[in-house]
Amino acid sequence: MFDYRRTHDCGTLRKEDVNKTVTLSGWVHRRRDHGGLIFIDLRDRFGLTQLVFDPEKNTELHAEAEHLRGEWVISIKGTVIPRAEGMANPNLNTGDIEVTVNEMEVLSKAKTPPFSICDDFIETNEEVRLKYRYLDIRRGKIANNLIQRHKAMLAARNFLAKEGFLDISTPIMGKSTPEGARDYLVPSRIQPGSFYALPQSPQLFKQLLMISGMDRYFQIAPCFRDEDLRADRQPEFTQIDMEMSFGTPEDLLAIIEGLVKTMFKECCDIDVTTPFRRLPYQTCIDRFGTDRPDTRFGMELNTLDDIVQRGTFSVFLDQLKAGGTIKGFCVKGGADISRREIDRYTEFVGRLGIKGLAWMKRQEEGLASSIVKFFSEELQQELIDRLQVEVGDLIFMIADIPQNTNQALDHLRRKIAQDRNLIPHDHLDFLWVTDFPLFGLNQDTQRLESLHHPFTSPHVEDLHLLDSDPLAVRSYGYDIILNGYEIGGGSQRIHDESLQRKIFDLLQMPPEEQQEKFGFFLEALKYGTPPHLGIALGLDRIIMLMAKTDNIREVIAFPKTQRASDLMMQCPAPVANEQLMELGLALGTVQK
Amino acid sequence: MFDYRRTHDCGTLRKEDVNKTVTLSGWVHRRRDHGGLIFIDLRDRFGLTQLVFDPEKNTELHAEAEHLRGEWVISIKGTVIPRAEGMANPNLNTGDIEVTVNEMEVLSKAKTPPFSICDDFIETNEEVRLKYRYLDIRRGKIANNLIQRHKAMLAARNFLAKEGFLDISTPIMGKSTPEGARDYLVPSRIQPGSFYALPQSPQLFKQLLMISGMDRYFQIAPCFRDEDLRADRQPEFTQIDMEMSFGTPEDLLAIIEGLVKTMFKECCDIDVTTPFRRLPYQTCIDRFGTDRPDTRFGMELNTLDDIVQRGTFSVFLDQLKAGGTIKGFCVKGGADISRREIDRYTEFVGRLGIKGLAWMKRQEEGLASSIVKFFSEELQQELIDRLQVEVGDLIFMIADIPQNTNQALDHLRRKIAQDRNLIPHDHLDFLWVTDFPLFGLNQDTQRLESLHHPFTSPHVEDLHLLDSDPLAVRSYGYDIILNGYEIGGGSQRIHDESLQRKIFDLLQMPPEEQQEKFGFFLEALKYGTPPHLGIALGLDRIIMLMAKTDNIREVIAFPKTQRASDLMMQCPAPVANEQLMELGLALGTVQK
Repeated sequence: MFDYRRTHDCGTLRKEDVNKTVTLSGWVHRRRDHGGLIFIDLRDRFGLTQLVFDPEKNTELHAEAEHLRGEWVISIKGTVIPRAEGMANPNLNTGDIEVTVNEMEVLSKAKTPPFSICDDFIETNEEVRLKYRYLDIRRGKIANNLIQRHKAMLAARNFLAKEGFLDISTPIMGKSTPEGARDYLVPSRIQPGSFYALPQSPQLFKQLLMISGMDRYFQIAPCFRDEDLRADRQPEFTQIDMEMSFGTPEDLLAIIEGLVKTMFKECCDIDVTTPFRRLPYQTCIDRFGTDRPDTRFGMELNTLDDIVQRGTFSVFLDQLKAGGTIKGFCVKGGADISRREIDRYTEFVGRLGIKGLAWMKRQEEGLASSIVKFFSEELQQELIDRLQVEVGDLIFMIADIPQNTNQALDHLRRKIAQDRNLIPHDHLDFLWVTDFPLFGLNQDTQRLESLHHPFTSPHVEDLHLLDSDPLAVRSYGYDIILNGYEIGGGSQRIHDESLQRKIFDLLQMPPEEQQEKFGFFLEALKYGTPPHLGIALGLDRIIMLMAKTDNIREVIAFPKTQRASDLMMQCPAPVANEQLMELGLALGTVQK
Repeated sequence: MFDYRRTHDCGTLRKEDVNKTVTLSGWVHRRRDHGGLIFIDLRDRFGLTQLVFDPEKNTELHAEAEHLRGEWVISIKGTVIPRAEGMANPNLNTGDIEVTVNEMEVLSKAKTPPFSICDDFIETNEEVRLKYRYLDIRRGKIANNLIQRHKAMLAARNFLAKEGFLDISTPIMGKSTPEGARDYLVPSRIQPGSFYALPQSPQLFKQLLMISGMDRYFQIAPCFRDEDLRADRQPEFTQIDMEMSFGTPEDLLAIIEGLVKTMFKECCDIDVTTPFRRLPYQTCIDRFGTDRPDTRFGMELNTLDDIVQRGTFSVFLDQLKAGGTIKGFCVKGGADISRREIDRYTEFVGRLGIKGLAWMKRQEEGLASSIVKFFSEELQQELIDRLQVEVGDLIFMIADIPQNTNQALDHLRRKIAQDRNLIPHDHLDFLWVTDFPLFGLNQDTQRLESLHHPFTSPHVEDLHLLDSDPLAVRSYGYDIILNGYEIGGGSQRIHDESLQRKIFDLLQMPPEEQQEKFGFFLEALKYGTPPHLGIALGLDRIIMLMAKTDNIREVIAFPKTQRASDLMMQCPAPVANEQLMELGLALGTVQK
């Protein structure tokens, strides 16, 4: 039998290896017939090596090589030789050498792939790429993302282990306690009519590990959400999940900064500067309209209520009367934005429910726009000062209820930054957002809901407001933002059973439901619970940012589509009737 | 607010730390009032430190300390002092010092636990311990197992990464292809009537990663089996799962030996000797009656057919005629085994379906037993030589069909070793079993079934026997055995689509079923599949052997019972009707 064990991989051979006898195995990437010789680029995940079949040295072998086709798997024994003068390929690690082949074995033939493996600039329909995922991975880009993911996980694990965190696996078949998203369910055969649920996160388990005295826990944890999926979501996703006892947010934030620094250094050789900036939640909203701002560029928002209320523009005045707010930002050099472009931005914010987009340009002679007339010269000067408008700049203003104004200006700001190329794409801008409110108000139900989750501790200074003004209560929650993406979030937890019940009460969870869903956890809190806190980082998103892609499917080996299908395996799929009968299940009426 | 951040954990302080001011936080392990002083053993997962409350130094604090109860969580500031002459506790790392307390904060009170945390010699019903898992973990034993598990995983990951294996996560929601065990199913909401399945192993995914060109893969993979559980099984279990391309079994076995050596060194500081012994499957069966022999002690089996067929013992002769076999082993010094004990061993093998247990003792004057008369002196001498029987020894013999004879003698051999304390419990005896048959014959269905799984490659020298004598075909499968436990198994895989179909055909899987279950995989094999091979190690079992427990629940943070229940969370559990309706499911008739 041909011994196909490699002496080298396809990315290793250099000038220094000339004259060595080597065994290489891999895929036929490209074949070129040139001047009577056959050249094969042999590929593996480490690189490409050029093989040469010379009919004058071995006629038979050369004839065999004529049969080789793309993606065949071969193994060869040969001799490393330098490339001829002027034939070196500086784009290839192995570009100084080639291997003249003395023996060859075809290990596997290959059908013609449904898309080209060697020309990765040819865009292929993603559905086809997902169906033949194993071929798409061969093209290199996804393979590199997976390698980076591997490095990131290893770096994270070693860093956290050194910091005293224990890698502890928690169950994947747990209890259904849906909040936020739907649970995926797993029917029990032994107890028909009962179900397990796949975890949306290991939140309760990690808190129980702190109650268990394990002190510091982490896990690179698979998590599951049965949601209608957005482009950057998957039904299965991965968190770097952590929890620690007897620490404060200061301690944890410093550990996370070290963790992130290590991951970016070991995966991308990028030096991340620590500590990260911190912004309180309200400052974020004021300055960026969002709690996950992209801080890589300016165009910060300013509130203009105090100025415009002294003007005579009725649209603004009506909004102010109705409880709305007017905010705006300045686009440096934006006076070159045409009326047509402004119309397009007006449509853009219109799709977010905003009725109008006000604008002014500063020309040599002062502010210009159809609404300038509603503002006195003094007010115009105040606008200029507030927004730091120079000649040649443009300002955009939106008036609506605060939530809408903020949302629209955040989107507009980012859109303009993109359109005008204001984003330094190689820059990594990390940010902590702190001092979140404990609760938000659900506009539909008019009920309080947790901004993080119900296990988040209220700020000790605001405990007295829980009953009187719950929306004013701050939490010990913190989010970590990178370039406008939330890459993680966490909090100091409640470690007191009666406070935990109080929060459930404020969320209007009836005592029976508290008992049914969280009874075991409330009980556990009674047996000596240490102060504890934690965080979960979105691994997929971190890898996306490392890989500079906005498609989460590019950083997962075998992803699912937005309809939660695996196109390669073709699942989900119907199962045998006996399987359902064993589970005590029947296919019922579908409720849409 | 009291700053409960620790300067030291409870296992760290030594004589050298005397006079230091420290902050410690932890659980009240024990309280002793003695000579007017209050002593508290403060506990965390790192150890115990003795605190002293002296009423003469701080009356108020001493009074507070009188309220402390077991499992309360407290934080203290105090000064390290040497213990008084003769009061040092050599059993405790911190036994030379104590901490005299200057300030204290109670962080959490605690209900009286349902079982004692500090007296771990008190046996508590496992159901109660599972319900209060977080308290059982506090008792230390399980915590230590989890720490060992953490170390083992980290050691494995670093070792494998250094060997070029990439840690790649594969989907947990996959396709149902039940074989061997039942799949756990996950109903799809978006495609009602369709299901995902939780993986029994990532077998197909890892082979697809080799087809993808990823070269070397590993994963510490959660796996799932809906089985009726035995004591050492869990519905969720964990494999160290690996696959590599362009290697041979020799390469992989050496890597695994290195991996195991590293894990035992880093977790238990045990030096494992490599390479491991190897025994072909048939030799194992011949010498031990099983393919996972405990090789830590002797009493190997010998076939006696050629001897007993020349005797006149009709029981043996009848068995031989019926295709049975007679095998036996010698118990050194076993002549002291009483008739009553022999009766008990006869019952023992009786429960395995064996009708009789023949025995002979060698006394000064020769062999003695009721059946000696059926054997001539010459035959007796042959028995003595074959089984190496010395004066004072005893031999056991069983006659039945080979499968039963082997099974019963394997069990009997291990039972006697246990009864007679022949097992060196600190010894780690690793063994590779190789040259497995590709198929076994299912006695019920009279069909071929895979001894490993259908993706295992037949031995190239035996390919010609696939049609004519499939049971004689050897595979490239290998199992790794430790002290009689199978801790892993793997094989060289089939990398040729037509051979893979051939194997499915021999297993009598109809082409439609091949297509439905494995169509995507058979398709993938066509696009240039490298030769590849792999293995999966049972992490839970390895940790069990490290922790010297035979209860798998002791090495898993939150395990399930043998009825697959989580007693702490109380799951599986019924779910809301709306959840089922959204999934297009109804509770049907239960089929038992």
